[in-house]
Amino acid sequence: MGNHIYTIGREFGSGGYEVGRMLAERLGIKLYDKELLAQAAKSSGFCKEIFENHDEKPTSSFLYSLVMDTYSGGSYSSAPFLDMPLNHKVFLAQFDTIKKIAEQESCVIVGRCADYALADNPDCLNIFVHAEMEDRISWISKRKDLTENKARDLIQKTDKQRASYYNYYTCKKWGDSRSYDLCLNTSKISKEACVDMILEFRNRMNKNK
Amino acid sequence: MGNHIYTIGREFGSGGYEVGRMLAERLGIKLYDKELLAQAAKSSGFCKEIFENHDEKPTSSFLYSLVMDTYSGGSYSSAPFLDMPLNHKVFLAQFDTIKKIAEQESCVIVGRCADYALADNPDCLNIFVHAEMEDRISWISKRKDLTENKARDLIQKTDKQRASYYNYYTCKKWGDSRSYDLCLNTSKISKEACVDMILEFRNRMNKNK
Repeated sequence: MGNHIYTIGREFGSGGYEVGRMLAERLGIKLYDKELLAQAAKSSGFCKEIFENHDEKPTSSFLYSLVMDTYSGGSYSSAPFLDMPLNHKVFLAQFDTIKKIAEQESCVIVGRCADYALADNPDCLNIFVHAEMEDRISWISKRKDLTENKARDLIQKTDKQRASYYNYYTCKKWGDSRSYDLCLNTSKISKEACVDMILEFRNRMNKNK
Repeated sequence: MGNHIYTIGREFGSGGYEVGRMLAERLGIKLYDKELLAQAAKSSGFCKEIFENHDEKPTSSFLYSLVMDTYSGGSYSSAPFLDMPLNHKVFLAQFDTIKKIAEQESCVIVGRCADYALADNPDCLNIFVHAEMEDRISWISKRKDLTENKARDLIQKTDKQRASYYNYYTCKKWGDSRSYDLCLNTSKISKEACVDMILEFRNRMNKNK
């Protein structure tokens, strides 16, 4: 049997990242998020900052791409990648890295269209975590010390970015249940309970084989 | 504590109805589906056939509505409902019936925007069941003795109808994870396992209170 991979898409402020962290801890496996970027950067030859600038952001302006492309290097700067905008190269480098990691070890991957990169992997369990807007506002305004209005704006902006990144690079729709195997509302059950539900689902997947 | 209500939205051919039936059986509670329509028909004074014609169908032509309206009767034929198209009246009668049932007993309700009718009910658990297209085609072509192409057409047509009915009458989006509390892919786990997951989620909801 292959490695067990868990991909987690999440609304901003829904606690999806925490669910992923707790899941990885419970299973004693790695969580990939920003770390994933660093690793992708290393193997592709891009500098880390370029990755962070392009992380889950759908569109940089054409001009910005042109200018930044001058500074890009590594394997994605050779043909046939020469004419490709930098954000596409960054996406492809992440895509490759996600596939490599999934071959090497069981892990949890948060965001970054990992479910799409691993679409052919039957041992991949794709999860989406969401919550009611009022709970997300309350959580984000506390955590980032923002007014409720500012928190709502940040939530809407971040979700919009994540959705357009996902919808642009995959043939699926961000947040649509059909893009995932299991979707959970953290306004109804605790994050601990979400981890239990994910493990239960995995357990049942194995029995289904 | 109030009655436990389970609403199930489902893709055509995903086994969502079967999951609902098994859930109701396991809990020893009623399943509402076509029966719900009959009950709504009885209390609203419409005849059963009109309900079946309008069941989860989003739009009948204006002319058809005009003609059929002549034949409608019962409480929804009085002011302020006189100028309302028949399919709206049918929706409202179902909406009322769903609310009444939820006050009276624990139950499972399949389709019919029940999650929207019960939006204010904290004891309501909203579920969506979906499956991969190839599994749905295989299931429907067997069950209805259709070629694969005919089965695919029927699936697409039925899902489209359900989606436009839901999107028209609610402020939510059919199939979007954010419209439900728990979404499950029956291509990954069995229908029995879905029932277990739903009961586990309910169990956790109670602990979360």
